[in-house]
Amino acid sequence: MDGMRSIMKLAVLLSVLLSSPHGVAQFSVADSIVVRALHDEILGRGECYENLRTLCKGVGHRLSGSASADRAISWGLSVLRSSGADTAWLQPVMVPHWTRGDVERAWMRVGDGPEQALAIAALGGSIGTMGTFSDSGEDGFVEAEVLMVKRFESLDTLGREAVEGKMVLFNRAMDPLLINTGSAYGGAYNQRSQGAVQAAKLGGVGALVRSLTHALDSFPHTGGMRYDDQVHRIPAAAISTIDAQKISDALKGDESVRVGMQLSCELYPDVQQANVVAEWKGSEFPDEYIVVGGHLDSWDIGEGAQDDGAGVVHSIEVLRALRAIGYEPRHTLRVVLFINEENGNAGGKTYARVAEEMGLVHVAAVESDAGAGMPRGYSLDAIDSSVVVIRSWAAGLEPYGLRSFRRGGSGVDIGPLKLEEPGGHRPVLVGLRPDSQRYFDYHHSDRDVFETVHKRELELGAAALASMIYLLDQQNWTGK
Amino acid sequence: MDGMRSIMKLAVLLSVLLSSPHGVAQFSVADSIVVRALHDEILGRGECYENLRTLCKGVGHRLSGSASADRAISWGLSVLRSSGADTAWLQPVMVPHWTRGDVERAWMRVGDGPEQALAIAALGGSIGTMGTFSDSGEDGFVEAEVLMVKRFESLDTLGREAVEGKMVLFNRAMDPLLINTGSAYGGAYNQRSQGAVQAAKLGGVGALVRSLTHALDSFPHTGGMRYDDQVHRIPAAAISTIDAQKISDALKGDESVRVGMQLSCELYPDVQQANVVAEWKGSEFPDEYIVVGGHLDSWDIGEGAQDDGAGVVHSIEVLRALRAIGYEPRHTLRVVLFINEENGNAGGKTYARVAEEMGLVHVAAVESDAGAGMPRGYSLDAIDSSVVVIRSWAAGLEPYGLRSFRRGGSGVDIGPLKLEEPGGHRPVLVGLRPDSQRYFDYHHSDRDVFETVHKRELELGAAALASMIYLLDQQNWTGK
Repeated sequence: MDGMRSIMKLAVLLSVLLSSPHGVAQFSVADSIVVRALHDEILGRGECYENLRTLCKGVGHRLSGSASADRAISWGLSVLRSSGADTAWLQPVMVPHWTRGDVERAWMRVGDGPEQALAIAALGGSIGTMGTFSDSGEDGFVEAEVLMVKRFESLDTLGREAVEGKMVLFNRAMDPLLINTGSAYGGAYNQRSQGAVQAAKLGGVGALVRSLTHALDSFPHTGGMRYDDQVHRIPAAAISTIDAQKISDALKGDESVRVGMQLSCELYPDVQQANVVAEWKGSEFPDEYIVVGGHLDSWDIGEGAQDDGAGVVHSIEVLRALRAIGYEPRHTLRVVLFINEENGNAGGKTYARVAEEMGLVHVAAVESDAGAGMPRGYSLDAIDSSVVVIRSWAAGLEPYGLRSFRRGGSGVDIGPLKLEEPGGHRPVLVGLRPDSQRYFDYHHSDRDVFETVHKRELELGAAALASMIYLLDQQNWTGK
Repeated sequence: MDGMRSIMKLAVLLSVLLSSPHGVAQFSVADSIVVRALHDEILGRGECYENLRTLCKGVGHRLSGSASADRAISWGLSVLRSSGADTAWLQPVMVPHWTRGDVERAWMRVGDGPEQALAIAALGGSIGTMGTFSDSGEDGFVEAEVLMVKRFESLDTLGREAVEGKMVLFNRAMDPLLINTGSAYGGAYNQRSQGAVQAAKLGGVGALVRSLTHALDSFPHTGGMRYDDQVHRIPAAAISTIDAQKISDALKGDESVRVGMQLSCELYPDVQQANVVAEWKGSEFPDEYIVVGGHLDSWDIGEGAQDDGAGVVHSIEVLRALRAIGYEPRHTLRVVLFINEENGNAGGKTYARVAEEMGLVHVAAVESDAGAGMPRGYSLDAIDSSVVVIRSWAAGLEPYGLRSFRRGGSGVDIGPLKLEEPGGHRPVLVGLRPDSQRYFDYHHSDRDVFETVHKRELELGAAALASMIYLLDQQNWTGK
């Protein structure tokens, strides 16, 4: 094994020496050898799957502000240090601190019938019903007749008279006809992010949002929501798709349908946590940075395996595998494990702000935040000439099933780097794109656990990410 | 809903009327509309997932010759009739009849230690140990010292002296570095198909074959094997990867390692079963046939959900969806549910022979026999000019994630159609290619059950198959 590794390291070294000095945009024989070596290293001796097991089973879910997020940060720092970073440190970030609390239940009453339990999860940031809020919930809950809508426009059409005092169920399903489930998520997302404000504007007393998933099951899928300072705050929760359907069916009858909920969630003052940053100095362009990352925080249910444990261990594996094959980066590589993607993006904003303040030139940033599925390619957010360069690598990546090179969003955490750099340079932003079909089955729910991750698919994702970082590193982006 | 469907049918009709009369090889606007309509129909109102549930949970596994295969045949005929076939019938096929029986166990003894149970499954076609075979198994079992090899060449090198009287463990793992798991399967497959003959030639008394899967777990994966009339028959079984590793570890010690097995499997005389054939007459080329199919038989463990329940319900859905959108085929379409792919391919051979005897011209055949995973494209087995035609559709299929159009095997059942047709025409053979990463986790084992199938992935597979059939139907393959 050691003999084989030495030979491989020599081949990689040789291939890099033989490659064109200033990275002409084409996929060379040297590139083939390195990309193959990265895949061999990760498929044959990968550590990302076991790292993910530790993160999911040892740390567990890790919402910003929680003690488990602190543990995840310590874990990330330690793993990055042992995976080949020159240096690694914590970059302080102030993050929100919202907690779900112990009480979270909902029920439906049809006419004079018995209470029927509903599966819900408070949306992140929601107020609770136990304390200050008591419009109709003197005993620490809110219960009201249900009004179901599928579009915000319907609320306006119905008007305050119909909405006032109601529990509003936003029940627009993700569109099954869209091939990419991310697009279907995008088409239903505003119910979760703005539903509470839309309902409250017209006097609604609570918002229930159909879980953002194609799966018809009993798991509520939480996620972030926002209030508006001009609008009264009302509690908001996600409801499982099966229970949303149950309410919808009940509303077809003649009897009144009432839904109650009791939530103990609370928002505390911001606390300091951190991004974890690891650095590997570049040999040729040490002052130009390439970032690869995912986010360390997760929602506070499930284990955050797909969202975004996968991106975290993918990113760490990039560093480990490039070291293992004997690669030496030309640019300075940074692995960044961002905090607080889920409810505020304080980590991504802080990282970009600090970089700007320090005048660091970021030539490229790549994020993995779309799960652990089989990688199918990359989404590209860059100027035209950079997109042309990246697309020129397609034939070389095709043997690995990487065939999609579409323009599109790269990732929430690296988004703030999109601002023009001081020198006028605009970094290339890339998102890893695993297959999307299963992602929202798990997303933000108790189903997002380690067992949903397929070892080889995870490894192939890491290898796709490492290959992209290697290829980006081969270019001279600023042309100096 | 009915209004929408009428409008869609009109659009499809219009698009077909507007399309070029003799199918120039390019993806037209009409093609886009039809392919989109097929996807909408199957994703929005698909029946393949519920059909698969019925096949898996109502019929269950269905090895050729079994009573459950008879039930599957009746079910297939009934579903095809209700899915829009003009006519459907059973085509008689003589198939092997091998049964596993009630007794199937294996054990390991290290030195004087206790019996340790091993997870095995007799390979299909293996002789049992209960009756006639008793070289060292007077009480109806065989037990012997283990010889482990990874390559057939090792047996020859070791020679008869080392092999004689031994239980031979073929323990070559599938190569994890190959991206396509089908290639890794191909590289380890001969251990299962020929291991017993190779061991017996040198006096081995039994063959144990490491299960053909990347998964490290406790499930044996069965499959077909062959004997050689010139070589003494010995019993052969698949062993779980964990237990193969356990034996391998034990062999590193100083103590003798013995493995025993007891199998009650038996081969009975061939019985008559059938291919299920459904036909939909073509409007323009009624005497030219396009086939779409999968195989109805499965191994006798698990439920045959991935192999090949998926292909069966994919194929039925093609017929249903083309009918539902108001399509009228130009060629005569046949859905064929083949029998006996797993241990003999009698169904595929019979279908091709009957077609030849009747002088039927088959211009194309498409098979789905690679599981229910996310479709990534098609494998093409055709003459160069036909491959060029099919690849010209790539841009139109790209929005559905169908980006792989490689040459390669199409499917075992349709393979016999590859023989030149009487008129000298060579049919285009196509295989649906779902993502391969998870397939061998389930393949031929108790894990191959309905629950492993993802509804949308299954539906997208059916839509990819339907789109290919539609596009093949648009061409004038014989140029008459």
